[in-house]
Amino acid sequence: MTIVEAARALRSGETTCLALTKRCLARIEEFNPVLNAFITVTADTALARAGELDAELARGIDRGPLHGIPIAHKDLIRTRGVHTTCGSALFAHDIPGEDAAVVERLESAGAVSLGKTGLHELAYGITCENPHFGPIRNPADRHRSPGGSSGGSGAAVASGMVLAATGTDTGGSIRIPAAFCGLAGLKPTFGLVSCYGIQPLGYSLDHPGPIALNSRDAALLLQALAGPDARDAASSFRPAGAYLPPDKPSLKGLRAGIPENGYFDRLTPEVESAVRSAIARAGQLGATLVPVRVPSLEELNAVSRVVLYAEASAVYRPHIAKTHLFGADVLTLLQQGLHVSGPDYVNAQRLRRLLAQQFQTLFQDIDVLLTPTAPAFAPLIGQREVVIAGQALDVRLAATSLVRGINVTGLPALSIPVHPRGSLPIGLQIVGPPFREDRLIRFGAALENAA
Amino acid sequence: MTIVEAARALRSGETTCLALTKRCLARIEEFNPVLNAFITVTADTALARAGELDAELARGIDRGPLHGIPIAHKDLIRTRGVHTTCGSALFAHDIPGEDAAVVERLESAGAVSLGKTGLHELAYGITCENPHFGPIRNPADRHRSPGGSSGGSGAAVASGMVLAATGTDTGGSIRIPAAFCGLAGLKPTFGLVSCYGIQPLGYSLDHPGPIALNSRDAALLLQALAGPDARDAASSFRPAGAYLPPDKPSLKGLRAGIPENGYFDRLTPEVESAVRSAIARAGQLGATLVPVRVPSLEELNAVSRVVLYAEASAVYRPHIAKTHLFGADVLTLLQQGLHVSGPDYVNAQRLRRLLAQQFQTLFQDIDVLLTPTAPAFAPLIGQREVVIAGQALDVRLAATSLVRGINVTGLPALSIPVHPRGSLPIGLQIVGPPFREDRLIRFGAALENAA
Repeated sequence: MTIVEAARALRSGETTCLALTKRCLARIEEFNPVLNAFITVTADTALARAGELDAELARGIDRGPLHGIPIAHKDLIRTRGVHTTCGSALFAHDIPGEDAAVVERLESAGAVSLGKTGLHELAYGITCENPHFGPIRNPADRHRSPGGSSGGSGAAVASGMVLAATGTDTGGSIRIPAAFCGLAGLKPTFGLVSCYGIQPLGYSLDHPGPIALNSRDAALLLQALAGPDARDAASSFRPAGAYLPPDKPSLKGLRAGIPENGYFDRLTPEVESAVRSAIARAGQLGATLVPVRVPSLEELNAVSRVVLYAEASAVYRPHIAKTHLFGADVLTLLQQGLHVSGPDYVNAQRLRRLLAQQFQTLFQDIDVLLTPTAPAFAPLIGQREVVIAGQALDVRLAATSLVRGINVTGLPALSIPVHPRGSLPIGLQIVGPPFREDRLIRFGAALENAA
Repeated sequence: MTIVEAARALRSGETTCLALTKRCLARIEEFNPVLNAFITVTADTALARAGELDAELARGIDRGPLHGIPIAHKDLIRTRGVHTTCGSALFAHDIPGEDAAVVERLESAGAVSLGKTGLHELAYGITCENPHFGPIRNPADRHRSPGGSSGGSGAAVASGMVLAATGTDTGGSIRIPAAFCGLAGLKPTFGLVSCYGIQPLGYSLDHPGPIALNSRDAALLLQALAGPDARDAASSFRPAGAYLPPDKPSLKGLRAGIPENGYFDRLTPEVESAVRSAIARAGQLGATLVPVRVPSLEELNAVSRVVLYAEASAVYRPHIAKTHLFGADVLTLLQQGLHVSGPDYVNAQRLRRLLAQQFQTLFQDIDVLLTPTAPAFAPLIGQREVVIAGQALDVRLAATSLVRGINVTGLPALSIPVHPRGSLPIGLQIVGPPFREDRLIRFGAALENAA
């Protein structure tokens, strides 16, 4: 059930906020023992809140499309009075005194939080094989990872435990679980959604955003989340736009760039086929397909690594010596980050600006850029390498290879599901110019409608 | 002769652009062999340009107050067809194909460039004992340094070789020579004056600006220099303000903060006395003197060092192994910068933001902050240590100790001369909120008028 459907059912009297919440709590009870999507379930608070929201509706107070909608928050987003573990031993017992901005905004829009979803330790990885809280499993195939780092949010939405969830994306952490779980995941423009109250990973790369069943539902969340917040130094002054797509969005007049280099070089046949089909469908729906040369993926990914390594190790420096507190993969990354030099970091930030300028030039000629989100299906739990086009690659590097560069640019990017029925999920990444989330959503909704 | 006086004499017919230029060239010929203020003198071009500008005036074309005014540019500011050495063996033979933005703007305002002034090697120091081009000498005492890094500009203006000059200020490099040579030196708000075409030292700390005989003359240059430039990624979108002070500026109604901590802790008696007298004079002129606690100088200076070391070594990394190309002091700094870690740099930039917020809070209560510019007189050439309040300090650290922190904040700061007649020069630093150069100039002009 989508948010749009639930909102309609609520207002037609077919359901209530309480019934929606109870149904989701029942699914959590049924599936969470296997999927491990939630770290903390706040059933009592959620039921009480749902009751209040029903009373509001009865009194004619309607907070809009998220009123009474069950959601969840990635567990590095601080929640007043509720454990916020960041999937880490460091924060396992932390109970914040204040809500993050995204929590405040969704609550004020009427959403009902059912709790906190699991993640890759400290959001610093994509497998979600969390050493402290156990592996999270993909609802589409329980032997597979949901992707990450926002894998608990992906698994929770894909299994119907909630209708949507928040995530954060520093190098693909919203778009990868969206692609691997068959969902719509939106990384907004840098600064559009406040990071206040969210545990940082990469100060200049972190983007909170929604994971939902489709683009329209993602837009409903973004509409509540977007806009300036003086408490976040990186927050844009830009007011929120109007993100909801028309009922029957058209792609006529839109120019869609299709990369000639980089993005299609190393994909599994299933991914290439599904993404090429989606692109062809965009053409049939009226989009003009424009072959384009894109900035170097190698440079984008190298900048991402240098900047992220240094920033993450800046965050955790006081703790890195306590090696027993970290999983092996995260510890290695944090230790490596200590050895990124200041001049390397400065030069990476300089190159970053040039790459962003190249994208700016690119978007003078096109309206959106279409790429695969990930080069292969979700990895099996425990899988360390994936073979693509005859070459063995680290699963982390493979999964992030087509998405992490977009964090370097700060541009908005939406992943939507484009796999054929019966297949494991596959994502199409739609990238746009700054603050044109409306265009990405319109594009995503049109493709979803036609699927 | 000030710019204001020269402009009046030009328009009353008492002099011509050509006569002004010739007079300055004669002073260069007389004093430059001793002072070594200029690396390159462009006499022929200057004479030709002065002639053109006289012809323009005769035809009624008046470019405004800088029309026909002889100036010079610090030799890390690129000049089309004219050597731009950066005071370094690396660039000793460089002849740029394009003018820096500040060169374009002053030329279009009618200023006549007489050439390129010497500097501390790569602008990375304050003594101007340049190993490639020889020491620059202070017109007030030829055994002393003019300060730096814009020491050639300071010496040229103080000796009447030009009426004003450009400089750059990464950790005090405009204000220190202004203080040591008895001039007005203005570091504008970060981003107000374009860095396009200027050799970088610290990307996030570099500020071009004017050095002139007094605040009003500095304002005339700033008026031409300020404003957005799309070619400089750090350029502000803020249009230029109106910087010229009224004829008889008053200090009535202005609240001047006087630091209770840090800035007056370690000064020579001469500096303390001259600066306290200037502050008392500000009070007599109507300013309200407000004792204030200021952000930690130690933290500001530590951030300045970490950020500058990393950024400067990022600029020169490919060359640092060629050790014979650098003076010992600059080489040491560049080598040290390679060892600043990425996480240190990131955390310094984080602390920087907090310090800037502290200054923002401070300026809610005051209009300007008054401090000494440097804690002692200009050092003797060859002097390595200065004893202040019984403690021996490195001359570089001492000279930059009260100014470099302001580069960290990006706030505008003006140094004006406040020494008693017969004394070696002493500077008062006037700091203001972002983009309020007009207020600093009004304050400086009022104090100069009353001196």
